[in-house]
Amino acid sequence: MSANPTLVGAQNTFEDPLAYLPCSPIAKYQRGEIIYHQNQPSAKMYLVISGKVKITRVADNGSEIMVDIFGTDDFFGEAALLGLPLSPEQATALENCSLMMWTAVEICSIAEIRPKLALALLQIAAQRSLDYGNRIQSFSVENIGRRLARTLIRLSERFGVAESDGSHRMGPFTRDLLAHCLGTSRELVTGYMNLFRRKGYMDYSRRGIVVFRYAIDEWSCDTGRTQSKRPTVQVLE
Amino acid sequence: MSANPTLVGAQNTFEDPLAYLPCSPIAKYQRGEIIYHQNQPSAKMYLVISGKVKITRVADNGSEIMVDIFGTDDFFGEAALLGLPLSPEQATALENCSLMMWTAVEICSIAEIRPKLALALLQIAAQRSLDYGNRIQSFSVENIGRRLARTLIRLSERFGVAESDGSHRMGPFTRDLLAHCLGTSRELVTGYMNLFRRKGYMDYSRRGIVVFRYAIDEWSCDTGRTQSKRPTVQVLE
Repeated sequence: MSANPTLVGAQNTFEDPLAYLPCSPIAKYQRGEIIYHQNQPSAKMYLVISGKVKITRVADNGSEIMVDIFGTDDFFGEAALLGLPLSPEQATALENCSLMMWTAVEICSIAEIRPKLALALLQIAAQRSLDYGNRIQSFSVENIGRRLARTLIRLSERFGVAESDGSHRMGPFTRDLLAHCLGTSRELVTGYMNLFRRKGYMDYSRRGIVVFRYAIDEWSCDTGRTQSKRPTVQVLE
Repeated sequence: MSANPTLVGAQNTFEDPLAYLPCSPIAKYQRGEIIYHQNQPSAKMYLVISGKVKITRVADNGSEIMVDIFGTDDFFGEAALLGLPLSPEQATALENCSLMMWTAVEICSIAEIRPKLALALLQIAAQRSLDYGNRIQSFSVENIGRRLARTLIRLSERFGVAESDGSHRMGPFTRDLLAHCLGTSRELVTGYMNLFRRKGYMDYSRRGIVVFRYAIDEWSCDTGRTQSKRPTVQVLE
């Protein structure tokens, strides 16, 4: 142990796992192609080189649930480290994409000689837990409109490009995909997107989505302060 | 690197972080005492020796959201590795509890000489991501009754003791706490708990909760298959 190691996690130091991983061959997936699925969970961790990948689940009633979307430089598939025979999650190429990948065995072997690799991945996992906590919070207390506002802001932060007018421009995300993120219907998403466009908070076309993040965030905060607390009606079956 | 290291994550091998961590002094917290909070996030990771700890958030409208509950042998506080000046989460002693703790600096220093520590913690984080994914799935497509059923099953798996009649007996969890887990009101939780008791799926008193896991799971699955898909009504504001 060095006397004064570079401390992951202290003073906002973020380690980059790639600094400790050898490059792997790059695999290409076509849009819509399945990377791993519930009955054949991955034994690998992946890094997105280009394109986007969606992680989904399927509910008992057949609904698709969007767990997360990963883009360039994002790692995913850490459940490979658990060696589970079945997994609740499926990874699918949301666009044509290029991925590097390492087996759980390789990750562990490399981390044995480069311990900071595991610490860097642990830091990513800790950030992801906070992100998932944000979504649990959003589902717990926010209506569909606020959940959509939060999702648009999050997607524009991760995948958008800042424009000179203060907006963020990103590629297209279909209403079905947004509905799967929010756990609601395409029709409700369409209704709120029309509302946001009328209010000047966003614009969209087949080519992409423009989000005026501050305006939509202000609307969301105002709505949150005035939103009634949890329902008290008893609906039993 | 050894030629054939013990592989974390391969073949369902679960490493125990405690095998690589020195014991720390034990700190005791009284029920209701705050361990860390939003404006003073922890710089430490914690291990529960006895008792229970709840991780919560506070929404804009003042509602409390239950992110997770940790009991004996559970680690929490991995966000310490991110070194954030503010955190959305608060940790509070749900019961009188005893904790060990290590600073992020200590965790990183130890992992530099014992790489399997970070891999073991990474494995815990990967499992937690799957658990949070389960909750996102539950919020996305399940009504309050099914969410309560799923929560009772999960709590009984983590904190319950199997009885000879097939039930699982656990300590008391208040209706307020369950409501904070589900993102709903105490009244709705009470309604569904009465329903479950009438159907013989559970029993409860001030001393604890008894869950007939298979019966409640069967009800939940039946309800899930017949539950209507997502709402299509437009409710705009």
